[in-house]
Amino acid sequence: MTVRISHTAEVTAFFEQAAGLGQEQGNPRVKQIVLRLVQDLARIVEDLEITESEFWKSVDYLNRLGARGEAGLLAAGLGIEHFLDLLQDAKDAQQGLVGGTPRTIEGPLYVAGAPMAEGEVRMDDGTDPGTVMFLQGRVLDEQGKPLAGAIVDLWHANTKGNYSYFDSSQSEYNLRRRIVTDAEGCYRARTIVPSGYGCDPQGPTQECLDLLGRHGQRPAHVHFFISAPGYRHLTTQINFEGDKYLWDDFAYATRDGLIGQLRIIEDAEAARSRGVASDRFAVMDFDFQLQPAACAQAEVRSERPRALQGA
Amino acid sequence: MTVRISHTAEVTAFFEQAAGLGQEQGNPRVKQIVLRLVQDLARIVEDLEITESEFWKSVDYLNRLGARGEAGLLAAGLGIEHFLDLLQDAKDAQQGLVGGTPRTIEGPLYVAGAPMAEGEVRMDDGTDPGTVMFLQGRVLDEQGKPLAGAIVDLWHANTKGNYSYFDSSQSEYNLRRRIVTDAEGCYRARTIVPSGYGCDPQGPTQECLDLLGRHGQRPAHVHFFISAPGYRHLTTQINFEGDKYLWDDFAYATRDGLIGQLRIIEDAEAARSRGVASDRFAVMDFDFQLQPAACAQAEVRSERPRALQGA
Repeated sequence: MTVRISHTAEVTAFFEQAAGLGQEQGNPRVKQIVLRLVQDLARIVEDLEITESEFWKSVDYLNRLGARGEAGLLAAGLGIEHFLDLLQDAKDAQQGLVGGTPRTIEGPLYVAGAPMAEGEVRMDDGTDPGTVMFLQGRVLDEQGKPLAGAIVDLWHANTKGNYSYFDSSQSEYNLRRRIVTDAEGCYRARTIVPSGYGCDPQGPTQECLDLLGRHGQRPAHVHFFISAPGYRHLTTQINFEGDKYLWDDFAYATRDGLIGQLRIIEDAEAARSRGVASDRFAVMDFDFQLQPAACAQAEVRSERPRALQGA
Repeated sequence: MTVRISHTAEVTAFFEQAAGLGQEQGNPRVKQIVLRLVQDLARIVEDLEITESEFWKSVDYLNRLGARGEAGLLAAGLGIEHFLDLLQDAKDAQQGLVGGTPRTIEGPLYVAGAPMAEGEVRMDDGTDPGTVMFLQGRVLDEQGKPLAGAIVDLWHANTKGNYSYFDSSQSEYNLRRRIVTDAEGCYRARTIVPSGYGCDPQGPTQECLDLLGRHGQRPAHVHFFISAPGYRHLTTQINFEGDKYLWDDFAYATRDGLIGQLRIIEDAEAARSRGVASDRFAVMDFDFQLQPAACAQAEVRSERPRALQGA
C-alpha cells in the first residue's frame, strides 16, 4: 500500500517552515511558489513511489542540465513553453484580444543587443556557403495599415543548425539583426536559408528525449521579436512549407499562420542584379500583424533572462 | 478569473505526446514521471498565475543552480531530503521495521572511495589547527551485540566548515575515511572537531534561502554510512549537544537519538599519552545500532550519483 504523509499536519507545517512562511524576511510570492512546488513534489514522490535512487538521479540530472545551460531547451522540448503560449492564447480569447500574427515560443537562443539597421540589412558574414535568402515583408497594424518604425528583431541558425554566440565558431551577432521598418512598414534582410536546429546528441535534453523515445530536431525557422510603440510585443517564428520536421518539431513551435513559402529562383541575371554570386537564390515574403497594446507593459517582452554578447 | 486549459482533452493529449506516451522507444517509468511533472507544473502555472517573467527567471535559476552543482544542496535546504527520511520512516513503521539508530540525510558532499582502515585511523592531515577529537564507538546489532567487520564510512567538514574535494585547498580525502570495526565492533577515529557548514553566500541555494527569509547554516556534524553483511545500510549524521544551530539546521537533519556529547579534556598528561601536541582535546563516544536487512538490496546505499576522487 502506498504510504502517504504529505497531507499530515506535521508535514504541512514542516514544508511551510521550509518555505519560510514563519519568517518576516524574504519575498512572499517566492515563498508561495516554493511551498507549492515542494508540496507537489512530495505528492509526486508518494503517488509514483519514487525510489531514493530515482530521486537522486533526477537531482543529478538537474545539476547536469544546468551545467550545460539546457533548462530552457528542456522546457521547450517537454512542451511547457508551447503550453505557456496556449495558456496566453486562452487568456487573450477571454479578453477578446484576438487577431494578428500568432505568437510562438522564443526558445533559449536569443542574444540581446544585435546590430540595428534602417529598413534593410545583410545578416550573414559571408562565410556560410548556404543559399542566399532575401527575407522581407511588412509590419502591419490590426487594420492592415503598415507600421513605420517598428523594430523587427530576428535571429536564426546557420546551415549547420547552430546559432552564433552559443556556437563560438561564428562571428559576433552572425545571423542576428534588428531592422527598423521603413515608411511603408517594410523590413528587408539578406541572409542565408537556415537549417533546422537539433539538440546536442550528448546533452542532457537529448538524454531525456531519448528516455521518452523522442527525437530532438526542429524544422528550419527564423525567430522574431516585433515591437512598435502602442502595439503589443510579438514573439514568434516562421517556418518553411515542405520542411520534413514542419509538424514534427521537438519544441512544438509550428503553428498555422506561421508557415512561409520559400521561393527558389534560378536566374543568373536576377541573382547578379541582387549582388548574389551564385545563379540561384531564395526569396521569402512574410508580413506580420500586431495587436494594439492594452497597456504599456504589453509593448515589451517578458523579463526572461537573456544572453548579451560580451556580458 | 483564472484561466485553465491543462485539464482539457487537447492539452492532456499534448502533454502525453510530449512525454513520449505514443512512442515505442524509451523508458515507460521515465515517461510516467515526466508526464506527471509536466502536468503538475502546468497546474502550478495556472493556479498561481505564474507570469512569463517568473517562469523564465525560474528556468534561469535552474541553469545557475546546476552550473554550481547545488541541486542536492537545495533539495536539503527545502526540506525535501528530510521529507524522504520521514516518508521512509513511515514505510518502515508500516512494515514493523523499527529500532536502531535513526537515519538522517546524506547531503550532497560525500566522496566515494575514501581510504579504508582496520579498527582505527587518523582522519585529518595535520594542517587544520582545530581541537583534536577522538571519535569512537561500536556498531551493534538489533540485540545490542557488537558487529565485527562492519564498515563505518564517515566524513565531515574542517574548522572552516568546508569539505575536502569540494574545497580544493584540502588534501585528498582529508576528513574522509572508512573504518572496519574490530572484533569488539569498535571503530576509533582521531580527527578534529568540525565546524558547521554554511551555504556559499554567493551561491544559488543561499539566493533562494534569502528569498525565503532563511539562513543557510548547519550545526557541526559528522556524516556516516554504516554497513555490514546481513544488516540494513544506515545513512546518518551525529551532532554535538549545545551547538547554536542544533535545532535550527537549514537542512533539517538533526534528530533525537543522533546528538552526541563532546567531552573536552584539559589534561596535558592524558593529551601527551595520546600523542596530542596541545594540552586540550575532545572525546566523543557514539554507538550505532543496525536493523537486520530484509533483503540484499537493503544492505547497500541508494544509487544516488556520488563524487569519486580523481574521476
